[in-house]
Amino acid sequence: MPINRRDCDAQDRDDPLAFARDRFSLPEGVIYLDGNSLGALPRGVAARVAETVEREWGRDLIASWNTADWYGAPGRVGAKLARLLGARPSEVTITDSISVNLFKLLVAACRMRPGRTEILAEAGNFPSDNHIVDSVARLLGLTARYVPASEIAGAVGPQTAVATLSHVNYRSALMQDMGAVTAAIHAAGALAVWDLAHSSGAVLLDLDRSGSDFAVGCGYKYLNGGPGAPSHIFVAERHLAHFDQPLTGWFGHADPFRFEPDFAKAPGIRAALCSTPPIVSLVAFEAALDAFDDVEMAELAAKGRALCDLFIALADERLARFGVALATPRDGSVRGNHVSLRHPNGYGVVRALIGRGVIGDFRAPDAMRFGVAPLYIRFTDVFDAVAAMEDVLARETWRDLAPTEAGAVT
Amino acid sequence: MPINRRDCDAQDRDDPLAFARDRFSLPEGVIYLDGNSLGALPRGVAARVAETVEREWGRDLIASWNTADWYGAPGRVGAKLARLLGARPSEVTITDSISVNLFKLLVAACRMRPGRTEILAEAGNFPSDNHIVDSVARLLGLTARYVPASEIAGAVGPQTAVATLSHVNYRSALMQDMGAVTAAIHAAGALAVWDLAHSSGAVLLDLDRSGSDFAVGCGYKYLNGGPGAPSHIFVAERHLAHFDQPLTGWFGHADPFRFEPDFAKAPGIRAALCSTPPIVSLVAFEAALDAFDDVEMAELAAKGRALCDLFIALADERLARFGVALATPRDGSVRGNHVSLRHPNGYGVVRALIGRGVIGDFRAPDAMRFGVAPLYIRFTDVFDAVAAMEDVLARETWRDLAPTEAGAVT
Repeated sequence: MPINRRDCDAQDRDDPLAFARDRFSLPEGVIYLDGNSLGALPRGVAARVAETVEREWGRDLIASWNTADWYGAPGRVGAKLARLLGARPSEVTITDSISVNLFKLLVAACRMRPGRTEILAEAGNFPSDNHIVDSVARLLGLTARYVPASEIAGAVGPQTAVATLSHVNYRSALMQDMGAVTAAIHAAGALAVWDLAHSSGAVLLDLDRSGSDFAVGCGYKYLNGGPGAPSHIFVAERHLAHFDQPLTGWFGHADPFRFEPDFAKAPGIRAALCSTPPIVSLVAFEAALDAFDDVEMAELAAKGRALCDLFIALADERLARFGVALATPRDGSVRGNHVSLRHPNGYGVVRALIGRGVIGDFRAPDAMRFGVAPLYIRFTDVFDAVAAMEDVLARETWRDLAPTEAGAVT
Repeated sequence: MPINRRDCDAQDRDDPLAFARDRFSLPEGVIYLDGNSLGALPRGVAARVAETVEREWGRDLIASWNTADWYGAPGRVGAKLARLLGARPSEVTITDSISVNLFKLLVAACRMRPGRTEILAEAGNFPSDNHIVDSVARLLGLTARYVPASEIAGAVGPQTAVATLSHVNYRSALMQDMGAVTAAIHAAGALAVWDLAHSSGAVLLDLDRSGSDFAVGCGYKYLNGGPGAPSHIFVAERHLAHFDQPLTGWFGHADPFRFEPDFAKAPGIRAALCSTPPIVSLVAFEAALDAFDDVEMAELAAKGRALCDLFIALADERLARFGVALATPRDGSVRGNHVSLRHPNGYGVVRALIGRGVIGDFRAPDAMRFGVAPLYIRFTDVFDAVAAMEDVLARETWRDLAPTEAGAVT
């Protein structure tokens, strides 16, 4: 018997995380399935940002570096985030962009493995990551070698200084076994740098137990930190003493206000910072993290998996006959928190859906991507979204919406 | 005859830039002389930030990358800033921090001068700059050599790939002749990277006419962009085609939404970007720049010079007898927009002044620094600030405020 909307409604009523949706300011009439690109606005953020702009900056001015502890914000927000990553508070800080942080980590990791000649990286990873891999390899005179994520564990060898890959692939949502892959990388004497862009705030992470060395993640996707929110960076405690990254700005200095000519690395995770952080964006991120208060990450991950299972089951029932193909694993244990579907007219379908208030995104050439942020997406939202897509495909309304340029849907 | 307050009041009445003070939200009872560390809050910023958070992010969500042109924000704000720098709109963009941008520029410049073995840099420059110089030299296998700013022109040689220095020194306010120093650097076949941290928005700049190759600057000082506002980066048009910087993220890609594995540099100044910008901080900066609308930079620079001249004359009259020494050039043509005074108890004096609502800052070991942002500082403010300092010194109220830690006044 096909899935009906009442079944989904029952799942919503039984959802132990249903309370979290009220923590977001969501527009009326919209089903927002793009939290994997830009998370929705948590309710407390606007007031906190206004407070920072109007009182901390406007009234207290420079004193706020101390009185509002802007100075401590990167570490304070990092510590708050650590629980969601399965990390110690002392291992995480918030700074720069994910690409800049990946650059820091790759150089630092290569310096810990002198004499090794290769950076091993994931073919098909988010391109920005691999552009950084190429750049680091060029700067350090190393080779960049690319294999699919599933082959990293087998390809790592005695020549590999560092292996880097995404925990959840941005396109397929294929999720790696972080512990097993890290163990294989370590068995070859190399170090692991994980990209958590599609993991942080979406799936169950245990950076410490997995033995991970380094990781970077994204503040503006499932963590709802706002557009371009600063990135997070994880350095395992055992590496902090020897962590030697190349963006040696004053925020990473042991004693920045002595203004000494020589760089002396800050102790702990502060060494991952470079320079003065964008405070307004950073406090927005801090306030956004309140949406995770009292949320058990295992429960959140289980809901995300159930939402994706429902999405896939409905796609099988209602979309496959229009030539829509699943590009995401069926097995929830190796899947992140979004569903990718392929269709030759994917661009037009996504555009038509947006016109009906169902917001997903498109990744060239033909992938339609739907993220199901467990904090604010309901089972009925998934039902309604697939029903809308079925209608779009049946009526071929996408025909009016052929791509003008691939970048028009970000 | 000593300068009296009525003279200053007359100067305020005659000030053609007096209108600009109303563009700022300044706390009552405060004389804010730390705009060189954190500029005051321009009035339009809070509303613009609220609009971005509540409507663009909260309601329009991912669509705002296009509809609010978040995507174009770095270039749009850079183009708006270009006039204040004497640059073409196509030569400036807003991104990352000043240290990260300096890293990009130094690597790019060294790549344009293969075979040269040295980065020449300013001894006594802001330490963060020189930490980055050291890091780039280490990565590229070059030598970092330091000489005082005044000796850069004479020290540059055939071994020098790039010379980097501040236009206005953060401590002394000594200002370099950008055209002459650049010409000397070019005569040796090297490239010039200028740090404009204490120049942008404060003094008259003409990056194009000076022949400058590259520059970085700061958004949160005289440009009033907010705490940790993103930095600006200038690349002379003639270098854009060959500009090859190492932080190769997707925002610097020619076609970021094609998601191609290979990096293809964006045309123009966009190649200086790395990754997704912190939009909330960036729109704050954009709104802040409205405070410069209809402001002639020559007029602004002239007022800043007159304010500093007044400060120095008053310090001679009223502070010298307490052992306060001028650490800033008397000659306004080689001075930036702040006055540094030295006193063995500088820390305590600055603290005591803050207690009276006169906000300056302290730079270890003994420098008291007072910035006179021409958009919102009045001649009477300078008079009242020096009078307060005289009183603090005469009563020795600083004795109660000995330093507990050097970093307590940022």
